[in-house]
Amino acid sequence: MSEVVTMAHGDGGEAAHRLVRDIILTAFGRGSEPLPDAVHLPRPEGRIALTTDSFVIKPLFFPGGSIGKLAVAGTVNDLAVSGAVPLYLTAAFILEEGFPLSDLRRVAEAMALEAAHAGVTLVAGDTKVVEKGSGDGIYINTTGIGVVPDRPMTDPYAIREGDAVILSGTVGDHGTAVLSARNEWGLVTESSSDCASLNHMLQAACRASDRVRVMRDPTRGGLATALVELCEDYGAVIELDGDVIPIRPEVEGMCELLGFDPLYLANEGKAVLIVEESAAAAVLEALRGHPEGREAAVIGRVTGTGEGRLLLKTPFGASRRLHRLTGSMLPRIC
Amino acid sequence: MSEVVTMAHGDGGEAAHRLVRDIILTAFGRGSEPLPDAVHLPRPEGRIALTTDSFVIKPLFFPGGSIGKLAVAGTVNDLAVSGAVPLYLTAAFILEEGFPLSDLRRVAEAMALEAAHAGVTLVAGDTKVVEKGSGDGIYINTTGIGVVPDRPMTDPYAIREGDAVILSGTVGDHGTAVLSARNEWGLVTESSSDCASLNHMLQAACRASDRVRVMRDPTRGGLATALVELCEDYGAVIELDGDVIPIRPEVEGMCELLGFDPLYLANEGKAVLIVEESAAAAVLEALRGHPEGREAAVIGRVTGTGEGRLLLKTPFGASRRLHRLTGSMLPRIC
Repeated sequence: MSEVVTMAHGDGGEAAHRLVRDIILTAFGRGSEPLPDAVHLPRPEGRIALTTDSFVIKPLFFPGGSIGKLAVAGTVNDLAVSGAVPLYLTAAFILEEGFPLSDLRRVAEAMALEAAHAGVTLVAGDTKVVEKGSGDGIYINTTGIGVVPDRPMTDPYAIREGDAVILSGTVGDHGTAVLSARNEWGLVTESSSDCASLNHMLQAACRASDRVRVMRDPTRGGLATALVELCEDYGAVIELDGDVIPIRPEVEGMCELLGFDPLYLANEGKAVLIVEESAAAAVLEALRGHPEGREAAVIGRVTGTGEGRLLLKTPFGASRRLHRLTGSMLPRIC
Repeated sequence: MSEVVTMAHGDGGEAAHRLVRDIILTAFGRGSEPLPDAVHLPRPEGRIALTTDSFVIKPLFFPGGSIGKLAVAGTVNDLAVSGAVPLYLTAAFILEEGFPLSDLRRVAEAMALEAAHAGVTLVAGDTKVVEKGSGDGIYINTTGIGVVPDRPMTDPYAIREGDAVILSGTVGDHGTAVLSARNEWGLVTESSSDCASLNHMLQAACRASDRVRVMRDPTRGGLATALVELCEDYGAVIELDGDVIPIRPEVEGMCELLGFDPLYLANEGKAVLIVEESAAAAVLEALRGHPEGREAAVIGRVTGTGEGRLLLKTPFGASRRLHRLTGSMLPRIC
């Protein structure tokens, strides 16, 4: 087998068959199974949850993760914040002619490791090849299937005044790490992506209290965009306390230097939860019991309902309204 | 909104939100619904079938179809040949900076039309944008979810000597149409892709007889590669009768001119079925009752079991063994 991806790897013939078997399936420890057009899975014990995401992150490898780890964790997290238990994953690769097979192996191994960590099983896949100059190494789509318990873990329509807004850790780590790995500004920081699967942590939070109203993962567009969408979808007014939002010094430093707002930087291992005030302590404790949630904090409150909006309390006691991210801040961050 | 895709459409903010709402969701007639991270679907009445495929076909529009129609039909067919009833679809787009929004709208409308025809519902989506030169207009991933009846429609392990091999129509139409649309050889043919969703036709075939052993869709790698895989997976010896395999004159002509073997050309609206000999007439009639199956024919027989292999009977009475497609014949055919 040649050392790079060739167009022959994409035509559905012998070379494609071997590529999938020898690299991708082998990484997942399943080298000898046949590949059906469609896989049949047991009837689930509840409703199905479904999510899809393509990953085009640049660079492919960065401190704290890789496109492979991200492609699993990102999809697992979309299921987990919806209140589902992630079970299965599909993976579809678009490979650029000339992409090193050694990099493909690293990516596949990172996916397999993260899938094992999250407890999800790869059940179907696809590989396509495009000519040099029509891609950028590798793009990955993952679709995740989960099961939703008959008794839903969350109820966003129960959001009401006084509810606590909890963030599971520091903001902006992923965006900063990727920006730094690109080295476009000659900056080197110590920052590492937070890229991680959060399903175990979030299940623990929901076991700790049945008063979790809603969960979101603040990825592209950052914490601010995720909360604006949430406010709009469920008619909540949220006031964030800018002073208590956890942030690493290196992230704050980079943002000051480059003029970025950390509330709009991508995260890939964080969740924001709205919980009834009385449940906040129990949920915080549950989050902090997991490595990904050690720095969880209450960062704001629901101060009203009706026309949804997100407000940020400034150090001077004033508050300003935050909107969705507009304009291209950081392309290809996931 | 600008007339082409910009990097800002990919950052998860306001522009991305409007792109999805105004073009993609609007094409599907669902402009005003919120977009959850993960969708929750009813508990299915049986096991789940799952398949994923990325589409990188070039050109995006070709006689008989488009990347949009293909992205729906291809995934629907993978479910249908597995014996599942397709229900839901996810769609993830990788857009290249500069891609015309009018083309995106055409693609989305073709997807919506084909989804309606096949009876599948789009339930989740994703959009990413890559810089000019890191993609090729648009790549689409679709993942399909279906339900498998409690009583399986097919049983490949029941394949035995004497079974009939039925092809639902002519070979090589898709490959020839796409090749012709590329116009690389200055050839213009009348050929049109067979791109179509086959789920209704295949369900009719399975209703006509409970002796359908297995179904496959001979896409990339063509009829020969699909049958070689089938022979290997289930230990069948199949002998095809080269004289009776349906083929359009323009496809045959182009293959002779360019030295292609039509048995290895891609099809996107054909199925090959192995059925018990006594059921062949009923299955043929059911297939021919659908527009996509009017030219269905028995093209060969299972002549033995054991070590799987595919044989082609030549006009002179000899037979030669066919293998998987090797080497890159037609890149980016789907």
